[in-house]
Amino acid sequence: MSAKIISGKLLSQKLNSSLKNSIDQIKGIRAPKLTILQIGDNPASNKYIKHKLKSCKNVGIDCDHIKLDQNTTESELEKIIIDLNKNNKVDGVLVQLPLPNQINEKIIKNLIDPKKDADGFNPITLGNVLLDDTEIYPATPLGIIKLLESENINLAGANVTIIGRSNIVGKPLASILINKSATVTICNTKTKNLAKVCKNADILISAAGSANLVTKKFVNKRMTVIDVGSNFVNGKYCGDVDYDKVKKIVKYITPVPGGVGPMTIACLLENVFKLYLNNIK
Amino acid sequence: MSAKIISGKLLSQKLNSSLKNSIDQIKGIRAPKLTILQIGDNPASNKYIKHKLKSCKNVGIDCDHIKLDQNTTESELEKIIIDLNKNNKVDGVLVQLPLPNQINEKIIKNLIDPKKDADGFNPITLGNVLLDDTEIYPATPLGIIKLLESENINLAGANVTIIGRSNIVGKPLASILINKSATVTICNTKTKNLAKVCKNADILISAAGSANLVTKKFVNKRMTVIDVGSNFVNGKYCGDVDYDKVKKIVKYITPVPGGVGPMTIACLLENVFKLYLNNIK
Repeated sequence: MSAKIISGKLLSQKLNSSLKNSIDQIKGIRAPKLTILQIGDNPASNKYIKHKLKSCKNVGIDCDHIKLDQNTTESELEKIIIDLNKNNKVDGVLVQLPLPNQINEKIIKNLIDPKKDADGFNPITLGNVLLDDTEIYPATPLGIIKLLESENINLAGANVTIIGRSNIVGKPLASILINKSATVTICNTKTKNLAKVCKNADILISAAGSANLVTKKFVNKRMTVIDVGSNFVNGKYCGDVDYDKVKKIVKYITPVPGGVGPMTIACLLENVFKLYLNNIK
Repeated sequence: MSAKIISGKLLSQKLNSSLKNSIDQIKGIRAPKLTILQIGDNPASNKYIKHKLKSCKNVGIDCDHIKLDQNTTESELEKIIIDLNKNNKVDGVLVQLPLPNQINEKIIKNLIDPKKDADGFNPITLGNVLLDDTEIYPATPLGIIKLLESENINLAGANVTIIGRSNIVGKPLASILINKSATVTICNTKTKNLAKVCKNADILISAAGSANLVTKKFVNKRMTVIDVGSNFVNGKYCGDVDYDKVKKIVKYITPVPGGVGPMTIACLLENVFKLYLNNIK
């Protein structure tokens, strides 16, 4: 027996195609517009932005990439964000992380108007995620929910264990799952006997960023395993899960690459489209 | 063997007394000021507000109680809140819940300036609680943390189970505990085998609002039990815990009354003082 593989690659293609149709159908009005701000020339950021630009183009979102000098000051960046917040032709604003040291990430995240918060990182957006009162969610948690729902995996009453408690994955994801009536356990590096805490879950979501953390000791045969990890081992890209061994045991599993990764971009595009619909109202 | 009782009554008296000293020491400046808005004449609200007024007076917080007619419209209430937001002599604004049906609770909570959010119910405040980037917390979760810390009960790495996922207790409390490196499990009415999920916790926090829900099947001898329940059974005020039986087994327990309840008011007062300090800066 081997797990059913939940392909984020296929699901994201489906979602992107459906989004393209929705955008095409809105005729006579301008295209949705996202502005990506990059500060400096981080090679990983360059690569991510290239992906985002290509994905936007594919679905019909107009995407501006503003690349600023590594030495840009916080107040210079603030001024640009304030102008973008005011510009009603811009629907989404995204500041590519990481930022250089002279710029305070919190201040920048707080400054982006929640009505243009494509990444869903503003505290207001996150507060509304907690309150179950939002259309915009951070893209990775939203992508995970869509992966689970695509297989009709039951969330209400399910025991879900999340490894990792970041502001962009673990904590907002926990809020969403709590609101969907799951019983949610959030683990971190201080968790005692991690394998045991995970072992009986119906759904195990690993967002630890630690290759081969989730071994067969962590899983059971009814389990769905969602691998949010993004690691490089000997030049090879992999998740947190000891995939080849774990997939032989569990019921569903997402691969890396081709699992959560492409869903994150698809959900970012969906956020931009929702912000656009509200903006042109 | 019987559990050590963690008295919220005593701890809140200590905190109130310390707060009174802090307020007394700020000489030559006006007292902190809280405005409580009440709409209608709900008997429970009358009682809670009476408590809050008395507690404010005891510590030296100037407290205005504005009682509006049951038929007050949403826009009338909004206008009053907007005026209070602008009034720099007012440090905290609190709208007593529940509100009559013609008024949308969410709109009102969102309208209170986060800089005057004494209750900590605004989405920005809650987003910042999730992000671990705030001085203001909803009062009941903050009171629970203070009860645990007063006994030096370890939170990092502790297994904490919370029953209940409300916006004012369960969810923000989970965020705070996650940020303090606890392994947190949040249960709800759909949780399968609740007793078993609770049984192995180091700390069990019940905020279900269901008398005698937590029986001896839910607990173990190393456990700390925090009872957030507020129920009436045959005219008697009680929590969620089958107190007499459970206290014989566990290590620490909070009583009802005299546990979490008085801590909530003490933490509300602390919020007002923090808002005041930021306001007079």
